[in-house]
Amino acid sequence: MIDINWKPNKNSSKALYRQIVDYIISEIARGNFAIGTKIPSQRKLAEIFEVNRSTIVEALDELKSRGLIEGNKGGGTTIINNTWSLLSSKPELNWKNYIEGSIHKPNLRTIQMVNRLEYTENIIRLGTGEPGPDLFPRHMMNKVLNRCLNRITSLGYLEAKGLLELRRVISEYMRKYGIQVPPSSILIVSGALQALQLISLSLLPPGSKILVEDPSYLKSLHIFQSLGMNLTGLKMDGEGIILEEIQKNGGKNADKMLYTIPTFHNPTGIVMSENRRIKILKYCGDLRIPIVEDDVYRELWIEKSPPMPLKSRDKNGNVLYLGSISKCLAPGFRIGWIVGPESVIERLADIKMQTDYGSSSISQMVLMEWISSGLYEEHLKEFRRKLKFRRDKTIEILKDNFKDIASWNIPQGGFYIWLKLNSNISINKLFQESIKEKILINPGSMYSFSNNQNLRISYSYALMDQMEMGLKKLSHIIRKLEKEQNSC
Amino acid sequence: MIDINWKPNKNSSKALYRQIVDYIISEIARGNFAIGTKIPSQRKLAEIFEVNRSTIVEALDELKSRGLIEGNKGGGTTIINNTWSLLSSKPELNWKNYIEGSIHKPNLRTIQMVNRLEYTENIIRLGTGEPGPDLFPRHMMNKVLNRCLNRITSLGYLEAKGLLELRRVISEYMRKYGIQVPPSSILIVSGALQALQLISLSLLPPGSKILVEDPSYLKSLHIFQSLGMNLTGLKMDGEGIILEEIQKNGGKNADKMLYTIPTFHNPTGIVMSENRRIKILKYCGDLRIPIVEDDVYRELWIEKSPPMPLKSRDKNGNVLYLGSISKCLAPGFRIGWIVGPESVIERLADIKMQTDYGSSSISQMVLMEWISSGLYEEHLKEFRRKLKFRRDKTIEILKDNFKDIASWNIPQGGFYIWLKLNSNISINKLFQESIKEKILINPGSMYSFSNNQNLRISYSYALMDQMEMGLKKLSHIIRKLEKEQNSC
Ligand SMILES: Cc1ncc(COP(=O)(O)O)c(C=O)c1O
Ligand SMILES: Cc1ncc(COP(=O)(O)O)c(C=O)c1O
Repeated sequence: MIDINWKPNKNSSKALYRQIVDYIISEIARGNFAIGTKIPSQRKLAEIFEVNRSTIVEALDELKSRGLIEGNKGGGTTIINNTWSLLSSKPELNWKNYIEGSIHKPNLRTIQMVNRLEYTENIIRLGTGEPGPDLFPRHMMNKVLNRCLNRITSLGYLEAKGLLELRRVISEYMRKYGIQVPPSSILIVSGALQALQLISLSLLPPGSKILVEDPSYLKSLHIFQSLGMNLTGLKMDGEGIILEEIQKNGGKNADKMLYTIPTFHNPTGIVMSENRRIKILKYCGDLRIPIVEDDVYRELWIEKSPPMPLKSRDKNGNVLYLGSISKCLAPGFRIGWIVGPESVIERLADIKMQTDYGSSSISQMVLMEWISSGLYEEHLKEFRRKLKFRRDKTIEILKDNFKDIASWNIPQGGFYIWLKLNSNISINKLFQESIKEKILINPGSMYSFSNNQNLRISYSYALMDQMEMGLKKLSHIIRKLEKEQNSC
Repeated sequence: MIDINWKPNKNSSKALYRQIVDYIISEIARGNFAIGTKIPSQRKLAEIFEVNRSTIVEALDELKSRGLIEGNKGGGTTIINNTWSLLSSKPELNWKNYIEGSIHKPNLRTIQMVNRLEYTENIIRLGTGEPGPDLFPRHMMNKVLNRCLNRITSLGYLEAKGLLELRRVISEYMRKYGIQVPPSSILIVSGALQALQLISLSLLPPGSKILVEDPSYLKSLHIFQSLGMNLTGLKMDGEGIILEEIQKNGGKNADKMLYTIPTFHNPTGIVMSENRRIKILKYCGDLRIPIVEDDVYRELWIEKSPPMPLKSRDKNGNVLYLGSISKCLAPGFRIGWIVGPESVIERLADIKMQTDYGSSSISQMVLMEWISSGLYEEHLKEFRRKLKFRRDKTIEILKDNFKDIASWNIPQGGFYIWLKLNSNISINKLFQESIKEKILINPGSMYSFSNNQNLRISYSYALMDQMEMGLKKLSHIIRKLEKEQNSC
């Protein structure tokens, strides 16, 4: 018979029977409840879990319908299956190891929670890093789709690097950034995230050291860590990564890579200065530390366009450049691109082929029309105008509500304000209290290598009146927590 | 100075300078030409490679523009870079190990060649497993896109399992196959290939044993092997996998999985009988060997619809079911789906999220309209009619040209005829000779665990007059090779 040392949480928003179902499944998955094990009677279970018998009946019904338990002739219930659940709890590759064995558990839990809560209805998302639905250019999309109507005349498997016409258009487009490459040096991917996955799968031995800004978007992903890479955070100043930080952690030594978001950095909004770009490119070039330049926010400047990409000065094929339209147009395309030396692009393309036979041809064709019709450029102008309004408005709201409780940067583009609280209240508590008020925040710890009092605010997502309401409420909660802290 | 023991192949279709560029890059990648190494003078190189000096100039120019070599002040040229090329030749994960260390090298080379040659102009593709461009339903696609025009009103990141409306429509659609599952048990993926990748990444420890039909489509992929799985081929008869083959290789033992294509099997066209389905499901259920049922050809029946999927009888969540529209509509959507127990689907969805943040929303929306408008069903009727014509025509061509030199099955659906040559001519030679005549064949060895004299013929791709011309020529080449063999 099973030994049960657990009770459902009556204060949770999750239904009691569901908590019980999940608990039993997780015990089966862990191997604690083996096949053939007898489950206590309904009456007994109701006692153990301190719930009504009807709750138990509901839970057992679900487990039965999933084929995990079976009623015996003589009454009583037995565990009869663990196939997939067991398999799915075994340590395979490094994914699961990472997920279970991570030293950053609370961090991870926050990320998972943020992801889940994003789909809660009526929640105000103060930190979500994508354009809000109202920013989607419907009319232009309609025009573009209209242009596509008679042009989608076949949809076969494409060649490994992606739709040639799209690569041509992107190759042309990249000249604007001072990057001159033929279409053969461009790989179309399903978003910049897939680019990162392909790079780690194809180019980096497990155990590689990845140097990244501290804080960094990359820290909030599992990709690199899951594949056994070690992230090292580098301190930044107002001009981007501090060169000495690379020198300290770099060293002449293979299996090392620099991942950087030099332009409108996620989450701090910092733009790496021209001078710093030149120095870092030279240093990494000399030490042959390859660079991945993640430039997905480049187009989102507000007052003036940012310095040219590192890639535009890269003479030695030392930089892999990542672009994406997720931030400037819409993530739902799932289209990004990698620019690099042809031999590397070919290797990445080969792995991409083995992974998913290429990205959606429909997305690629539609994007091709967006860019070649000139509507993309037109949209960007409009989009920048709207972003400026949103940034200004958000800064104003902050001035009105946060002057005495936080400090912040004024970003020159991108989506993010890196808000730093003055007091040292528990950010975890702030997160929980905010959820109760239907406000979702992105704690700085998601992106950072050390504890901090930051929040990532994104002015790209919420409507401005929601933003105002949300930030106001947030400031009230912060003040309340400050008071509580001071009084004890 | 470098020691060179290699010459370009003057009979190759690849330009000489390109061969030289590739050779030097591969030497750098392998570490044979280290940084700082001096390259012989142009004159000397021309001598060594037995080519014109202008060819050398062209090759060195390209290497220079890629940043791999540099002219010295005093004349002469030096290797100056190896960063990415070096990295990309290191053994990382298992991909590269597999690619380099594979015991199936010739096989692998054939697959790579087939993939590359598919994009050669004017080549007749006798074995390509996708609907030909003329089978693409342009007018219906136009109608569907028209329906989408005003419906694509936002394109944000989606929830992990994919567009809920599409999952609803698929859940509804699956009832036709006797599979009743809620949308929460369905994961949208970027084609069935990605499904296989996610399953191997998420559910199977490296070293797992995958039982598959011999021959099998899976054998032609790297996915499972790359991730350290071992494939075991199971013999088939006219009713599908022979049960005793599973018994022989199965055994009560974890870390084992059965992958099967029970319906219009790739590459043999075999349909597993109802009786066999029941037996295999029961046996694997009893021994808790999970099953992946790849059912991407189900809709493509010609005379009568095939037996219901294994999944429709699966009471214990022992079967993961894969669907895709690549074969019935168009691969360019890159949309497929996995049906399975919710806990497994959730795990797969989590890994999918970490991989690419979901599949193209545009593809998902367009497919949703295809199915919900009823146009997909309409298209399928038309498509089956056309496939019947193609199959009949191809069988006729075979009768006219191959009666005395080969035997074959008459498939009841899907795309494939598994042609078996009577003689034991070298299939490799046949492949090479066919290429010269601009005919591309898929040798049986791509799919099989043992040598054989088979070819996979697909009546889905080439136009029927091309098919006729191609098969005729192929029969001539076979006869020629037979004669050559007999005369020596
Ligand atoms: C710096 C950075 N890179 C990449 C991504 C992922 O973009 P995509 O949607 O193109 O995969 C994000 C999105 O959050 C990002 O902030
Ligand atoms: C049996 C089988 N499964 C899966 C696939 C891949 O399909 P998709 O385009 O959906 O990734 C193929 C295509 O060749 C196939 O034959």
